[in-house]
Amino acid sequence: MQPPEIYAIIMAGGSGTRFWPASRRDRPKQYLKISGGLPMLAQTWSRLEGLVAPERTLVVTTADQVAEVQGALPELPPLNILAEPEARNTGPCVALAAFEVAHRSPDSIQLVLPADHVIRPKEAFHRTVNAAASEANLRGSLIVFGIKPTWPATGFGYIEAGEVVREVDGMAVHRVKRFVEKPDPVRAQTFLSEGGFYWNAGIFVWHTDAILRAVQEFLPQAHASLSKVKKGADLSEVYREIPAKSVDVAILEQAKNVRMLPVDYFWSDVGSWDALSEVQEKDANENVTSGGTELIADDARDCIVHGDPGEITALIGVSDLIVVHSGNATLVCHRDRAQDVKRLVERLQREGRTFL
Amino acid sequence: MQPPEIYAIIMAGGSGTRFWPASRRDRPKQYLKISGGLPMLAQTWSRLEGLVAPERTLVVTTADQVAEVQGALPELPPLNILAEPEARNTGPCVALAAFEVAHRSPDSIQLVLPADHVIRPKEAFHRTVNAAASEANLRGSLIVFGIKPTWPATGFGYIEAGEVVREVDGMAVHRVKRFVEKPDPVRAQTFLSEGGFYWNAGIFVWHTDAILRAVQEFLPQAHASLSKVKKGADLSEVYREIPAKSVDVAILEQAKNVRMLPVDYFWSDVGSWDALSEVQEKDANENVTSGGTELIADDARDCIVHGDPGEITALIGVSDLIVVHSGNATLVCHRDRAQDVKRLVERLQREGRTFL
Repeated sequence: MQPPEIYAIIMAGGSGTRFWPASRRDRPKQYLKISGGLPMLAQTWSRLEGLVAPERTLVVTTADQVAEVQGALPELPPLNILAEPEARNTGPCVALAAFEVAHRSPDSIQLVLPADHVIRPKEAFHRTVNAAASEANLRGSLIVFGIKPTWPATGFGYIEAGEVVREVDGMAVHRVKRFVEKPDPVRAQTFLSEGGFYWNAGIFVWHTDAILRAVQEFLPQAHASLSKVKKGADLSEVYREIPAKSVDVAILEQAKNVRMLPVDYFWSDVGSWDALSEVQEKDANENVTSGGTELIADDARDCIVHGDPGEITALIGVSDLIVVHSGNATLVCHRDRAQDVKRLVERLQREGRTFL
Repeated sequence: MQPPEIYAIIMAGGSGTRFWPASRRDRPKQYLKISGGLPMLAQTWSRLEGLVAPERTLVVTTADQVAEVQGALPELPPLNILAEPEARNTGPCVALAAFEVAHRSPDSIQLVLPADHVIRPKEAFHRTVNAAASEANLRGSLIVFGIKPTWPATGFGYIEAGEVVREVDGMAVHRVKRFVEKPDPVRAQTFLSEGGFYWNAGIFVWHTDAILRAVQEFLPQAHASLSKVKKGADLSEVYREIPAKSVDVAILEQAKNVRMLPVDYFWSDVGSWDALSEVQEKDANENVTSGGTELIADDARDCIVHGDPGEITALIGVSDLIVVHSGNATLVCHRDRAQDVKRLVERLQREGRTFL
């Protein structure tokens, strides 16, 4: 039996302070060409080609980013941009999209995915989504994709897999024992050694009925507020009533019908400048270039360079550096310190400086 | 007895590839604000205030830089720019200026100095120039300023001092035993340990008669060619006939009446990005900022940063780096490799790339 039509919901509300100075307040990570020649949002869009029709692809973003989304996705029907009055984490975002899709097509499957991940190859991704869609349609389960850890990451939530309940198209569908918040390094190492733990990639598949029921049960304020909008209330009035929780905490950790599908494709959330080494080709000296800048290197290795087309970055006698120029700002950061870029941006904010 | 009026001849013909990417083909080092708030040429100009009147200050530059000079020195009378048809080292430049000054005022003293050095305090410089002027006027000698070495530099020519022939205003006037071309590190160390050796700073004082006689004797082609110009020949036709030698090699190493005056002020030729640490104030972590960029540093030390006003440079977890952004180019270079910037620019030229 064919599952009903799939709607894709691209969550494009991030602010991406870890990619400063390329990412700024008015140009978050999803609009950057940090990996490949297209902005990350456009890459996510083209990843859906052959899986979800453009008219069934929705982008949820904040009101101030609507023009950016239209610029990055000229083929997206304008009515398919859902503008949140303000960013309130993924729980309200998922609820908003669920209501909209229910209005358009009550018997449908939703694929919810972030705008700023790298996934390849596309075909493997489609296969996993189709298997998940079939499972979600038949069983009404809420499906989360799990990534097999390759290192003891402390920046992701983890999912402890339960038993396999069935196979779909050769892919194992697991129960979920528990969700684990971002662990400390020791726990992360334990998860990696023990096995059976997966990274929560923030990619979900569910039937519209199932997510609406879950919103009603576990995020009742969202259900109540969005029902008022259906009766004519102003979204910008009611949206702030909804608790700003993640869909993981608000719904998935509570619901009984959650299943996990381990994925077999390459995935990266490209969580910092350092992660470009995972997703970009390296030169003979392990240097990575991104964003279009030319590189000229004299005795430089293991560096990550980002800059605009028409620019040049020159490195002499250095290694293990992140070097970024964008607009009016230049960043030079040791690769071990990539996580501290966010802290630096917070310091700029605190000190009331520009360059944000 | 008061010496005759002093003419200043600022040599502003350098190309400054060591300061790429701030220095470019159309904006050599002397037009950069790499130390203090003014371009180096304007600093040199203001150093003459109270010593040489603007109408007696000449700037020798290449024809393509005339507009740059006027921009940097709005108070310079336009007729005081001597445009060389092409850069041919300092020998022809000195001869050209000597002919021009002789035409304006045959009984005069000339102070010849590069456009792109840092010297302070100004008062000490004036004292030395006045002493040299008095000596040059009374004895007809060609005076070169000597800098007492503070480290075994291999980038300068050296002067071995001979006996003191007299004191002028408390300053010793030495004979010159010999000029030494840029030494290798071992010789440079010997010069430093033995004492009696001075750096040739390329700053000269002489009477117009004396330099004209020296040009006629030791650079006769210059004398012949420039005499033709006096009779109506086109400078751009005859300038290329003059051998492109330095004034040191062509004249000072040959002449018998050369004297050296050791100077007692701070001097730097600011020969590379690394030299900014000599001439700019440091912050608490020994970082130096230049050019007007803001700096935000998290655990960064001993770095040299240059960028334009209105820009910011952010450093996280790095040390001993040169970080420069200018226009369409970014440079990150280990401080030990500052001399290799020139080589990198030559490589860009060779590869026919832009950014020059």
